[in-house]
Amino acid sequence: MKVFKTDSEVFDILHKEFSDFVLGTETVPLYEASDRICARDIEANIDVPHFDKSTVDGYAVRCQKTFSANDENPAVFDLIGEVKTGEIPDFKIQEGQAAKIFTGGAVPEGADAVVMLENTVEQEGRVFVFKPARPNENILKKGEDVGKGCTVVKKYQRLRAPQIGVLAAVGQKEVEVFSRLKVGIISTGDEIIMQDQPLEGAKIYDVNSYTLYSALKQEYAVPKLYGIVKDDYEALVGILSRAVSENDVVLISGGSSVGTYDNTLKAIQSLDEAIILVDGISIKPGKPTIIAKAGNKAVFGLPGHPVSCLFIFKFFVKKLFDILLHQQDTAGGKVLARLKSGFAASSGRTEFVFVKLIYSDEILAEPLYGKSGSINLLNNASGYVKIEATRTGLKPGDLVEVVLL
Amino acid sequence: MKVFKTDSEVFDILHKEFSDFVLGTETVPLYEASDRICARDIEANIDVPHFDKSTVDGYAVRCQKTFSANDENPAVFDLIGEVKTGEIPDFKIQEGQAAKIFTGGAVPEGADAVVMLENTVEQEGRVFVFKPARPNENILKKGEDVGKGCTVVKKYQRLRAPQIGVLAAVGQKEVEVFSRLKVGIISTGDEIIMQDQPLEGAKIYDVNSYTLYSALKQEYAVPKLYGIVKDDYEALVGILSRAVSENDVVLISGGSSVGTYDNTLKAIQSLDEAIILVDGISIKPGKPTIIAKAGNKAVFGLPGHPVSCLFIFKFFVKKLFDILLHQQDTAGGKVLARLKSGFAASSGRTEFVFVKLIYSDEILAEPLYGKSGSINLLNNASGYVKIEATRTGLKPGDLVEVVLL
Repeated sequence: MKVFKTDSEVFDILHKEFSDFVLGTETVPLYEASDRICARDIEANIDVPHFDKSTVDGYAVRCQKTFSANDENPAVFDLIGEVKTGEIPDFKIQEGQAAKIFTGGAVPEGADAVVMLENTVEQEGRVFVFKPARPNENILKKGEDVGKGCTVVKKYQRLRAPQIGVLAAVGQKEVEVFSRLKVGIISTGDEIIMQDQPLEGAKIYDVNSYTLYSALKQEYAVPKLYGIVKDDYEALVGILSRAVSENDVVLISGGSSVGTYDNTLKAIQSLDEAIILVDGISIKPGKPTIIAKAGNKAVFGLPGHPVSCLFIFKFFVKKLFDILLHQQDTAGGKVLARLKSGFAASSGRTEFVFVKLIYSDEILAEPLYGKSGSINLLNNASGYVKIEATRTGLKPGDLVEVVLL
Repeated sequence: MKVFKTDSEVFDILHKEFSDFVLGTETVPLYEASDRICARDIEANIDVPHFDKSTVDGYAVRCQKTFSANDENPAVFDLIGEVKTGEIPDFKIQEGQAAKIFTGGAVPEGADAVVMLENTVEQEGRVFVFKPARPNENILKKGEDVGKGCTVVKKYQRLRAPQIGVLAAVGQKEVEVFSRLKVGIISTGDEIIMQDQPLEGAKIYDVNSYTLYSALKQEYAVPKLYGIVKDDYEALVGILSRAVSENDVVLISGGSSVGTYDNTLKAIQSLDEAIILVDGISIKPGKPTIIAKAGNKAVFGLPGHPVSCLFIFKFFVKKLFDILLHQQDTAGGKVLARLKSGFAASSGRTEFVFVKLIYSDEILAEPLYGKSGSINLLNNASGYVKIEATRTGLKPGDLVEVVLL
């Protein structure tokens, strides 16, 4: 009898088999680097700021004179000039002198604090300061924010708006990132047709090519479609070989029926250096999943049912991507929600229940039910909840983690 | 004295002023529709499935004969044929007859259930069924999943993998979506330079153009850069007018110092049909934010500090996008986390504290501190937590909602 792997065994296999995968890199303009993954540690070539910088509008002074200042007894300074924003002032501040300065301006030599405009009055060449100022108050010292030589972005870090901002701040115009994962998509099944073919007999339109293509775009991969292959071993072998040679990962969907499944398994086995890593997973849905390695390429045989297919993509294929790209599993696509109603789980396998999120005072998750392969279930599901094989269900009011689809 | 608006007043103003905005539409291939917003209700032109469909591998039968079947006393059927997947069978099932059928196959006329392969034995032209089957068991009836004429995707619905799958299932090859929002980006300030200029004097590299460009990409908008404008009223008016004429929304960053701020405000006021809706918001950070309407275009004056600038984008500009695109504020970018340490809030304004998320057994949020304008703070922040003006802080262990940056 076939031995099914558990979901955590499958994760271990993916880690073991694909952790040493080496991705290519490319250099892209910083503007276009959003959501790409940094290919090396990047050090700051400059101090940020590279001068002592005022963080407010006000007056640069030596602060000691302000220590006893209050509303009745202001400290008085002679106004000797104004700092032109963007330039290093060509004057020095002496005891008892003040210079007007704006946010971002360079603090003149000799000054050790900037007093905020709100706490001053300027009159006839003199500045009255009504509050004490501490040394370095409202000054960002040279290199205080980012020191020259510090690592600002790490290898494998995903570049989002904040990281791109930091790279801009240290003067980077471009950045070396890992190449996007190339992923081939093949749909199989005698009954599957393209949307431009007539809907005859018991044919159905291809759904998985579309959902996988879209889901791959969301994961920043580069999807490539190889069309629909009938239940024909030779045809599948031909297209699969080409797809494997042209991509990092190949996804074959279909194969819920015994014949298509057998074809898919045999075609994968025929690939050069093919090793079948997983043939069946003890989960619901998605039991008939196949995972293989062909050389340094990964091949997935995904269930034909659209909901199961997308779910296996989100749960296992995305896991592989995280391993290949050295990404931590982050909470970006997860939401904590309270179950609106309970449900029973009795399969003895790890079960995944699709839920619809309802945004009220708190976020509610409503379990969805649908016959196997329901398209409508797919449309209504916001995400899924995992129930360990050892549990018999979940109760209304339980707090659950919903992984968004 | 200037009256600052609260954050909820600003939301109300945005709703009132921009709810009747009309977006253009365009028709795109379904493959390319990921993350676009559907421009009209889409009805199914076909039933899904458009035939009675088997959801398992097994045998199609009339089920009444199975009602008393068990391991000792199987119901026995004559095998009369096999359903070819993708075709409507040309035979009928009579009482006592069975036809082999695979997942996705069309249930033959006369049959009212499909018994699973696992519960049968086939021998010498006969099928032994060892378990009772209910009427319609393992059959998805014609139109049961999606009925012809049903709305499958609604106007304003964001098209993600599941929705694209549903549209594929009903045979759509393309879909009408709303045009992406066009957004112009202008950076201002005498001290701001591009990354290809030498870092002289007290100049600093432009950060906000990069962070806004990247954040706009993440929001599926079409960003356009208008470069850096010095503190020169005429120059700003010229570029601003052009940006407003070419975009739906214009973001001007800079203006933390009084002079730049005044310039920005005057330049916005000079636009045709300009109305200043908001001039200062009672929040921390981001107080000096300007929001205006010029005809049917929106113009934002954002703070110059990179962290404040990105925060105001996420909090108010994204809110405007949600209004323009009729999107509900969803939890896609939010995470519930437990505070690692507490912090005090004392400004009397609504405060936003940047936090770093730490993924351990549960998700922890560690408050970050940094001087105003810190780039490093930007880099370390996973998101922010809102503290109402009426609160004086949050305690360690408090459960907080973190909005991801």
